[in-house]
Amino acid sequence: MSTETTPLSSTPRTTLRRHRERGETDRTALYQVLDAGLVCHLGVVADGDPVVLPTAYGRDGDTLYLHGSSANGAFWAADGQRVCVTVTHLDGLVAARSVFSHSVNYRSAVIFGTASVVTDEDERWQALRVITDHLIPGRWAAARQPTTKEMAATAVMSLPLTEASVKIRTGMPKDDREDLELDVWAGVLPVSVTFGEPVPDPEQRGEIPLPAHIRDRAS
Amino acid sequence: MSTETTPLSSTPRTTLRRHRERGETDRTALYQVLDAGLVCHLGVVADGDPVVLPTAYGRDGDTLYLHGSSANGAFWAADGQRVCVTVTHLDGLVAARSVFSHSVNYRSAVIFGTASVVTDEDERWQALRVITDHLIPGRWAAARQPTTKEMAATAVMSLPLTEASVKIRTGMPKDDREDLELDVWAGVLPVSVTFGEPVPDPEQRGEIPLPAHIRDRAS
Repeated sequence: MSTETTPLSSTPRTTLRRHRERGETDRTALYQVLDAGLVCHLGVVADGDPVVLPTAYGRDGDTLYLHGSSANGAFWAADGQRVCVTVTHLDGLVAARSVFSHSVNYRSAVIFGTASVVTDEDERWQALRVITDHLIPGRWAAARQPTTKEMAATAVMSLPLTEASVKIRTGMPKDDREDLELDVWAGVLPVSVTFGEPVPDPEQRGEIPLPAHIRDRAS
Repeated sequence: MSTETTPLSSTPRTTLRRHRERGETDRTALYQVLDAGLVCHLGVVADGDPVVLPTAYGRDGDTLYLHGSSANGAFWAADGQRVCVTVTHLDGLVAARSVFSHSVNYRSAVIFGTASVVTDEDERWQALRVITDHLIPGRWAAARQPTTKEMAATAVMSLPLTEASVKIRTGMPKDDREDLELDVWAGVLPVSVTFGEPVPDPEQRGEIPLPAHIRDRAS
């Protein structure tokens, strides 16, 4: 991987204590894990307890954007609060000869930071474009863009990509040497996220051909 | 869905304030979302900040089990603490005519509760079986089971399935009526998690045929 980017932070909680060989210190690895993901898991503390919710996101340089309804109180409550955003790709189930050595292949990014509700209208517009195009590149330009009323109904949160850790496991099981002789099948079951054939809305008026950006996303 | 099970809890934070039509109140829906998942996201509060980590899990009746290394301090720190476990299935990207009406189809379960490190040896053994067979049903019986030393190196956490919410979105975009005439393709891009062909460990000794439990998982 490229090493031309700023290395990832090394704070106590982003320094891996276990399986250090799975740690990535290159910022490019963080970008790759985030850019390949579809949804993230946002962790906040509410009334002292952890809350973890799945949500869409997008990345613009070293800023992560999330969005929600401006009627969502939890969203506003997170303004100025510490949050954690995690993106995980499960790449395989690792079947070892011993139960103990079973594992999974994965790529994950864990980002810690202080969330801010974005108030600048230009940045809000850009953030929504980034989130929309993250899920389906090219979709923003193809769809009807937000009205003033719709913008008012939408809240945008930003999180700087300053404190993050990336972990990646690949490859085969790591059984103890004495287990290698066991008559147990061992290997990896690859797991991936795949897209099916796009299904047009039955309410579609007339013949609208499948656009390139949808075909590209689904392929 | 069956209504013969205990309904899900209705505490303030598991009562949906938005998109109530996406809420499920049947415990069977919780079981289905959990049983179909591969990894969960565990949220804890550490030094006052939220931390969200992906991990394997398994369900035994109304108990969720997680496991980790007994050398993992964070695991022990969670004993007796409030945690949140979330399992999310992304089922589709919902492309609406307006950017504002874009959405995703998903099934998610959010569980709140107090985690306990399991100390009873029989329950620990059973929990590890449940977690192993959750990822690959039948794997526990096929693989070499844990030694006393391996059991000592493994920590097991339990979480009761008492306070939980389940949300499910399915179907087509819900554009405003006046947007239906727009010349914009709308519909759903189905998303699913799929298994590829199992890859045997090159260190495998001799010919070990692919066992039924691996073939069944991958199909």
